[in-house]
Amino acid sequence: MSFAPLLNDTYLRACLRQATDHTPVWLMRQAGRYLPEYCATRARAGSFMGLATNVDYATEVTLQPLARYPLDAAILFSDILTVPDAMGLGLSFAQGEGPRFATPVRDEAAVAALAVPDLAKLRYVFDAVTSIRRALNGRVPLIGFSGSPWTLACYMVEGAGSDDYRLVKSMLYARPDLMHRMLAMNADAVAAYLNAQIDAGAQAVMIFDSWGGVLADGAFQAFSLAYTARVLAQLKRTGSDGQIVPRTVFTKGGGLWLEEMSALDCEVLGLDWTVNLGRARALVGGAAGTPGKALQGNIDPNVLFAPPAQIDAEVARVLGSFGAPHTDASRPGPTHIFNLGHGISQHTPPEHVTALVEAVHTHSRALRS
Amino acid sequence: MSFAPLLNDTYLRACLRQATDHTPVWLMRQAGRYLPEYCATRARAGSFMGLATNVDYATEVTLQPLARYPLDAAILFSDILTVPDAMGLGLSFAQGEGPRFATPVRDEAAVAALAVPDLAKLRYVFDAVTSIRRALNGRVPLIGFSGSPWTLACYMVEGAGSDDYRLVKSMLYARPDLMHRMLAMNADAVAAYLNAQIDAGAQAVMIFDSWGGVLADGAFQAFSLAYTARVLAQLKRTGSDGQIVPRTVFTKGGGLWLEEMSALDCEVLGLDWTVNLGRARALVGGAAGTPGKALQGNIDPNVLFAPPAQIDAEVARVLGSFGAPHTDASRPGPTHIFNLGHGISQHTPPEHVTALVEAVHTHSRALRS
Repeated sequence: MSFAPLLNDTYLRACLRQATDHTPVWLMRQAGRYLPEYCATRARAGSFMGLATNVDYATEVTLQPLARYPLDAAILFSDILTVPDAMGLGLSFAQGEGPRFATPVRDEAAVAALAVPDLAKLRYVFDAVTSIRRALNGRVPLIGFSGSPWTLACYMVEGAGSDDYRLVKSMLYARPDLMHRMLAMNADAVAAYLNAQIDAGAQAVMIFDSWGGVLADGAFQAFSLAYTARVLAQLKRTGSDGQIVPRTVFTKGGGLWLEEMSALDCEVLGLDWTVNLGRARALVGGAAGTPGKALQGNIDPNVLFAPPAQIDAEVARVLGSFGAPHTDASRPGPTHIFNLGHGISQHTPPEHVTALVEAVHTHSRALRS
Repeated sequence: MSFAPLLNDTYLRACLRQATDHTPVWLMRQAGRYLPEYCATRARAGSFMGLATNVDYATEVTLQPLARYPLDAAILFSDILTVPDAMGLGLSFAQGEGPRFATPVRDEAAVAALAVPDLAKLRYVFDAVTSIRRALNGRVPLIGFSGSPWTLACYMVEGAGSDDYRLVKSMLYARPDLMHRMLAMNADAVAAYLNAQIDAGAQAVMIFDSWGGVLADGAFQAFSLAYTARVLAQLKRTGSDGQIVPRTVFTKGGGLWLEEMSALDCEVLGLDWTVNLGRARALVGGAAGTPGKALQGNIDPNVLFAPPAQIDAEVARVLGSFGAPHTDASRPGPTHIFNLGHGISQHTPPEHVTALVEAVHTHSRALRS
């Protein structure tokens, strides 16, 4: 496949810890329910999975936020549960209830029956990646993504969202052997899934370890981090165009394990809003000319409910907490990719996103001059 | 008031960083729905608040877990929302839905109308403290408690539990002046409430900052930690019997801010399961002969769903992560109070708690010999 040349490589450069003229910004869940045009497309699609499985709809909603805001990256519109769905667990989205699996994985027989899914069942995702990449026409890079092995396991065992993770943790503590078997399967499936996204045109990939932070110290390292590492070890390093495909790992609630995460074979670590960006930079960001991770994050999505003047001030505070931008074009150094610390709320006023993106670009340019 | 002499002071000694012959253990929410005898008493009381507001029932359920397990402390049976209820917000517990306030605090007028409540409205709590202390008859110390100013504010603004804290954070970011006014009021109310518990016979107190961990770095320090400090500055240091009343602060999800929390004027810091106890000890536990905090926690409550052999192994692991016990009776040193990292689940098999308490006592005695 050949695609149009990339016009705005700010995000990719920042992932690789190269100096940029502004801090790139994109927002987790930037194509979503806070946008009326998204709701209109979803209504036409009939359902969430109707939207996610239709290449034209997925392309349309992925590009919607880019039409409103000068974002520096696009992210595939999809769901983190496509992989277990392809494993045959029967994903559905009941109205206002979030995802649910018809056949959760709760005993030895169910774990034994798991297999890396036939990627043909996920063809709709890879087709969407190619379609979106073409539609972007080089405007900004396209990020592919997957849930982490542990996060997928949470949903696969609980069968739905949970507030205490009782079932999945019961299996973890009572039958760690079963949990390890499921996680190894998930890791190999996620790696194949992300590699297929890369082949289809994804220019960067991100692993969402959304529920890693619910694990105890010790359990996180054994049941989440180790399997994220297993995914990373299998990922392709370059796309079909020969370009490096940067890899981001985001463990929500993982701030305590940042030093251990810095050993991961990835380029970028995502941070939630509880982490002090300056401290994270000192720990894992790497001085100019030394190895380190690019850092992504981490403003509280609830800042977007404040008026634009307060949004501007909070953006300046987050940029300031990261500290002086790396500007030495001759060598890599600490870089920051601006994002929320979690997905954008469906209740966000769209015009407040305008204020946020503008504040990131304006303040981060000023910091460099 | 005079009470029977204390027979088991292990918990109080550990709070004061004094050497003990075993690691004391108690469990957050140890009087609760996992116990059939609790459910029976609650059924007689008719409702949760019927239970909490009746001195005899509150005494009965507080003592129930002590009849089953050799716990080293009792904790007042009550709710963290008694203070805002006394402020006139109209607390109720709908069946299976958790707490709800009839008149949440969402605008300037509602904040302006807030006042430190008349403590006479909370008399039922102080009467329960005295009744429980008498019923304990010196067996173990009695812990009083309150929610933190920020945690109370979360419920007061949201009006109920929340998964995104959108309303309270919207006020925080949009109208920090209102939030500060509410928090100052809450802090003064909490201090008066805890002091009255101390006067009524509480031998230690604990501040539950259950929702401090949802705040962004920076916001935590300004909107939670500062007001916990304001409470602590007002607390009585000794009870009516002249004994020191140790103070514990527990911020769930606060592991990243442990060093800042170590500046609090309290004796004990509570930790959830994400924190490595050994690292926490090194950061804030203080070497023998130097100042520091006692540490409380932090096993994942979900460990209690595993069979007793795994519970035993996980208890040993948690004790081991804290490290070698402080055994020098001549000076203070790092101490550990065993607890869960959060409240016990209602689904816990009661006999698994037997295994946990026995494992703590057995292993911690062995570590000292």
